[in-house]
Amino acid sequence: MLKNWIFGADQRDVHACRELLKERRAALAALQQPIKEAKLPVIVLVEGWGAAGKGSIIQSLIRELDPRFFKVRSVGMPTGEERRWPFLKRHFETIPEEGKILFLDSGWMDETVRERLRRDLSDQEYARRLESIRVFERQLAAGGYLLVKIFLHISQDTQSKRLEKLLEDKDTAWRVGENDRRQNKNYDTSLEAMDEYLTATDFPFAPWKVIDGTDAVRSQLAAADWLYDQITAALKARPHVEQPPRAWPLEPIPLLGAVKLDKTMDEEDYRKALKRCRKKLAKLHNELYRKQVPVVIAYEGWDAAGKGGNIKRLASALDPRGCEVLPIASPTPDELHRQYLWRFWTRLPKTGHIAIFDRSWYGRVMVERLEGFCTEDDWKRAYDEINEFERELTDAGMVVLKFWVHIDKDVQLERFQDRENTPEKRWKITDEDWRNREKWDAYEGAIDEMLQKTNTRNAPWIILESVDKRYARIKAMETVIHALEEAL
Amino acid sequence: MLKNWIFGADQRDVHACRELLKERRAALAALQQPIKEAKLPVIVLVEGWGAAGKGSIIQSLIRELDPRFFKVRSVGMPTGEERRWPFLKRHFETIPEEGKILFLDSGWMDETVRERLRRDLSDQEYARRLESIRVFERQLAAGGYLLVKIFLHISQDTQSKRLEKLLEDKDTAWRVGENDRRQNKNYDTSLEAMDEYLTATDFPFAPWKVIDGTDAVRSQLAAADWLYDQITAALKARPHVEQPPRAWPLEPIPLLGAVKLDKTMDEEDYRKALKRCRKKLAKLHNELYRKQVPVVIAYEGWDAAGKGGNIKRLASALDPRGCEVLPIASPTPDELHRQYLWRFWTRLPKTGHIAIFDRSWYGRVMVERLEGFCTEDDWKRAYDEINEFERELTDAGMVVLKFWVHIDKDVQLERFQDRENTPEKRWKITDEDWRNREKWDAYEGAIDEMLQKTNTRNAPWIILESVDKRYARIKAMETVIHALEEAL
Repeated sequence: MLKNWIFGADQRDVHACRELLKERRAALAALQQPIKEAKLPVIVLVEGWGAAGKGSIIQSLIRELDPRFFKVRSVGMPTGEERRWPFLKRHFETIPEEGKILFLDSGWMDETVRERLRRDLSDQEYARRLESIRVFERQLAAGGYLLVKIFLHISQDTQSKRLEKLLEDKDTAWRVGENDRRQNKNYDTSLEAMDEYLTATDFPFAPWKVIDGTDAVRSQLAAADWLYDQITAALKARPHVEQPPRAWPLEPIPLLGAVKLDKTMDEEDYRKALKRCRKKLAKLHNELYRKQVPVVIAYEGWDAAGKGGNIKRLASALDPRGCEVLPIASPTPDELHRQYLWRFWTRLPKTGHIAIFDRSWYGRVMVERLEGFCTEDDWKRAYDEINEFERELTDAGMVVLKFWVHIDKDVQLERFQDRENTPEKRWKITDEDWRNREKWDAYEGAIDEMLQKTNTRNAPWIILESVDKRYARIKAMETVIHALEEAL
Repeated sequence: MLKNWIFGADQRDVHACRELLKERRAALAALQQPIKEAKLPVIVLVEGWGAAGKGSIIQSLIRELDPRFFKVRSVGMPTGEERRWPFLKRHFETIPEEGKILFLDSGWMDETVRERLRRDLSDQEYARRLESIRVFERQLAAGGYLLVKIFLHISQDTQSKRLEKLLEDKDTAWRVGENDRRQNKNYDTSLEAMDEYLTATDFPFAPWKVIDGTDAVRSQLAAADWLYDQITAALKARPHVEQPPRAWPLEPIPLLGAVKLDKTMDEEDYRKALKRCRKKLAKLHNELYRKQVPVVIAYEGWDAAGKGGNIKRLASALDPRGCEVLPIASPTPDELHRQYLWRFWTRLPKTGHIAIFDRSWYGRVMVERLEGFCTEDDWKRAYDEINEFERELTDAGMVVLKFWVHIDKDVQLERFQDRENTPEKRWKITDEDWRNREKWDAYEGAIDEMLQKTNTRNAPWIILESVDKRYARIKAMETVIHALEEAL
């Protein structure tokens, strides 16, 4: 996209451009209300050469916008702390709410191309990185996000002149970084790497717009035009996003109806096993810290199956300074107005830490599916999206385990009745539990589909037979022990 | 508190202690529901020597708690990035919601004592730091927070044995840091510094409990006892927190009724001034970046006074990558359930950045006062708390400016009517605006009190006469220019 570029092809009169730019800014301001009404979230990614004018483009685009409708973020390279999470985490974290615009001064492109040029990424890692970016942008687009991608292009000569000018004034000299110098010196190599990246990520659902940055006003107008056109198009119709068929490395898992629930463990064996597991887990957690491996454990299960008690036993065996239990309730407005995986991306554990999710992203294909909180298209797409999400985690070195805490309908009834009849347990049972129980069969169908479609080798489901809660607790702990031993 | 300590004075039978500990844990678990109902936020700060058993104490205390009711945080020393904010920011950020317990494995004590011992803090800076901590803890206590402070004490000999034991196993060796070694080597100096800190921060509203860490079970029981007693006491009655009278360096400011609103600026002068100010501000923002000075600008003003337009003109003159406009709406549930300054602490700009607050913490003494969203005691206390908050910012090198955008009642009526009669402006006017207008006099009284009590030299109020919006915009920009020139 860059190689045969002719600089200065845009010959429009600068004064006329300036007038048009003013009109365009007013037109963009007028789009704010429709964006809000359509609940359209917009990400404007401005990438480009150092000193190409990315900041000025953003400053020009926001000039007439209401500060309540937009944010500007300057991403920069990840800090040491940020490198303790998977690549996509800090980018996922910044995504805007519905009806808001986020302007990014460099983002995942700059980071990736820089690392590529510095040879921090091998060919294989680079290909994997591009795959992460494709997943990220496709999930956002499929989730209704508009991605407006701008690349600001200047020639080697223009860049060196601008860098010199910045260096002349002590108040702007600090803006010229080592990377800008290196870019300018190795312009051709950098251009090749950028071109390669642009070509690889020029998706139909999020295309690149290369803009000539030689002249400030013309480039600002070109950016405003592109943004205006993209928004008006998205307000008319969100693009259909093709989900390419993917072959996941699925492992067989029984249907719930075929799971034998007769497993038990007597009190004495339980005490002994608990003690043994606690000791083992404490030791493994230390090793985990040392080797800086992060762990995610997701719990799902029937109401009254004993999920809470199971989590408590597991968590209390781990060092609380490095283990967090994350209860997932209904999404807050902040969460509800963003892509549904956002609230999980933002809660991921850093290296050496363990996060136990008490309910998880699987809500999408259970309660959200059955209660109609998302469209059919949404939950059908979610199996792949969840597999992709988990793949991002495990490829970054995370251990991911998913527990289904299982009982049958009769046992649930007994436990519900017991809760109702025991004053100190009564707060645990609500009308909603009874309503959910009525939909047992529909849930069982959805859960079976979920287990079959997301039981990947890298992030497996484990069914915990929890008619005897002691058995289920020990099985959970032993499963974690086994998985950690494998990983360490 | 530590100097004449006799180790091993707790002679209780260990087996009996173990049984008591189990009971105590169950009793703590039973307190969760009452804590939730009383909406009591609890912070359990566990400080102490390296290898004194802080982690085990926390692990023991949470053993029977429901993960939905508590969090554990291990604070550590501030990262380079965290040092770009005032000292209290990262500590304020962690405070729990009402009805929840936060356990902290080291906190602001460890950080302060370490920096003191490393001579990163001069005597004067140390005294200032203690003052920050006093403000922090007192504001939390006055805001209904229960602070349970535990210091875990061990002898030099015990510490060296424990460190040796940790070093023997490669999975625990990494836990022994440079600081632990230094502490052990310079035990007496460290003890003196810790003792000094404990004495200086042993407040009646948040007293220290020193616990002998020599024996694990006894120390865990002592911690559980202390926590249990503190919670039950707080559930009975929150302590009265004495607000010491403080003399703020207040500057005179006129009552609103005495402000002349006849200032105007013609269109041509305005255009010229705007151009000049924009240029000047762009230059100053670069200098600000270079010198790493953070800036906070708070806007308050009458409805329809022209606050939004004023902010837009100022913000658009600054580099959007380093300037954020923060619209402050009604608090979200997250915010509502924490001390009221929390949502401002968490939004502070880092060094070199500018945050413009569109409405601010002054809501406490205006709308929250007049609409009864807080108690009389709350808003009366708030003047000092706000002055303290702003003092924390300016002492950390921040520039703090506060604008009151002013019009009179007649001008407001004209503008309201104009909004109602102009279709594209109609969304700007709501029934609430009319209701607020009816309370003009009450608001004027509250605002006058606010201006008189918080117009400090370090964080001054500036009244922007905004009958002519052009005049007000240029005055705002020139005020910012002047303040930045002073600061740089």
